[in-house]
Amino acid sequence: MKNKKEITAGIIIIGNEVLSGRTKDINTSTLAKWLNSLGIEVKEVRVIPDIESTIIETVNLLRIKFNYVFTTGGIGPTHDDITAESISKAFNLKYGFHKEAYSILEKYYKPGEFNDGRQKMAKMPTSAKLILNPTSGAPGFFVQNVFCLPGVPSILQSMIGGLNNILVGGDPILDLTISLKTVESEIAKSISEIQNKYIKEVEIGSYPFFRAGKLGVSIVLRSSQKQKLEKCSMEIFKFVKYRGIEIIEEV
Amino acid sequence: MKNKKEITAGIIIIGNEVLSGRTKDINTSTLAKWLNSLGIEVKEVRVIPDIESTIIETVNLLRIKFNYVFTTGGIGPTHDDITAESISKAFNLKYGFHKEAYSILEKYYKPGEFNDGRQKMAKMPTSAKLILNPTSGAPGFFVQNVFCLPGVPSILQSMIGGLNNILVGGDPILDLTISLKTVESEIAKSISEIQNKYIKEVEIGSYPFFRAGKLGVSIVLRSSQKQKLEKCSMEIFKFVKYRGIEIIEEV
Repeated sequence: MKNKKEITAGIIIIGNEVLSGRTKDINTSTLAKWLNSLGIEVKEVRVIPDIESTIIETVNLLRIKFNYVFTTGGIGPTHDDITAESISKAFNLKYGFHKEAYSILEKYYKPGEFNDGRQKMAKMPTSAKLILNPTSGAPGFFVQNVFCLPGVPSILQSMIGGLNNILVGGDPILDLTISLKTVESEIAKSISEIQNKYIKEVEIGSYPFFRAGKLGVSIVLRSSQKQKLEKCSMEIFKFVKYRGIEIIEEV
Repeated sequence: MKNKKEITAGIIIIGNEVLSGRTKDINTSTLAKWLNSLGIEVKEVRVIPDIESTIIETVNLLRIKFNYVFTTGGIGPTHDDITAESISKAFNLKYGFHKEAYSILEKYYKPGEFNDGRQKMAKMPTSAKLILNPTSGAPGFFVQNVFCLPGVPSILQSMIGGLNNILVGGDPILDLTISLKTVESEIAKSISEIQNKYIKEVEIGSYPFFRAGKLGVSIVLRSSQKQKLEKCSMEIFKFVKYRGIEIIEEV
């Protein structure tokens, strides 16, 4: 499904807590929805451990592969927060106190509370640009096309809006979800035929679900071309009507 | 944190629905907790799109890198379910009707209901071994060290138990979570000192949280050595008591 103006992103979730199963990653979903709205498609997500060499290798690989890379996690005050130092090494940049970040944190905390741990959060590539944090003070940062955000979902969510004018997206990706009271095998052939007809312009996904006692299938259409999306959805509605399948929801 | 008998796994989440942000992946957490209980450590997770060449490339890379690889998603009846065919190509094996899988599905459905879409779910590498599905009939499968499971969480969950006697794990990974009423920067230095003391045996993670109106930090200890884990936790309890920090929970 190639978009002529396709702008891509990769996400790197840095965190042993996700790999151990303790924490379910929800940052991918937040980032992907937001990036879609800017016309940026997430093409790959990697969850990796808090190991410096792995972070450096993964960042250096993905920042060439995609237009943008977002990392989450590892920018707090504790020993296992090694993202900022790893990014400095990945870009071969000086790691140390970032003047602006230091000044922000110094003002954020009460006198006497700006301790060693908190000061560590001002350490990053000294030439990085900051991503402001309206929730808890400590800023994220970016170097070239690599954007480093915290792992705590509510804080991450509050910070991304500040990047809307910095990222350059393509055509926004539109989507339409049609939820049907049926099972996949009943509609597989027809949906496949419709997909083949729109193979270049619309991506059709089929996802079975079981919720609130209802068994069904969500057909998800995604495209950056509004007219093609509408034409394709009309074909699905036509087929659904012809077959007498109940539409549960259309979003 | 090298374990002498370390057995590793990689997880490949195949699904545009996760990359688009529509679906939050919870299979990683289910698989990781279960694998930990068998003494298998998840070292990397990749979320990739429903693109054949990407699936083949990722599977062939990770199956060399780790002892086990688990894929989720893409084994249903619709056009976007391409995992089984991709795995056949990755291993250079014949793709076609799997006799045992066909027979299982034929019995599962009522006469006349075993249509084309459902028959597709019996197509896979013909020499694969099956992973039985007590929930919805259609089996998963495995080839060498690559295990292919469905994407629907409740179905995946019901199938993994069948693999307990097939996977060979190392020492089970034990964990202990101590949740404290504090902020990370207050404990960063002491926890770092304790981590350095147990650098080879215990992995210590520090995760801030805000839940039920309580701000705190979870200290997570992980180790395959029970005694070292206990000794390390004693040091944390000692430090916490000395500093007068309230323990919210210990799990």
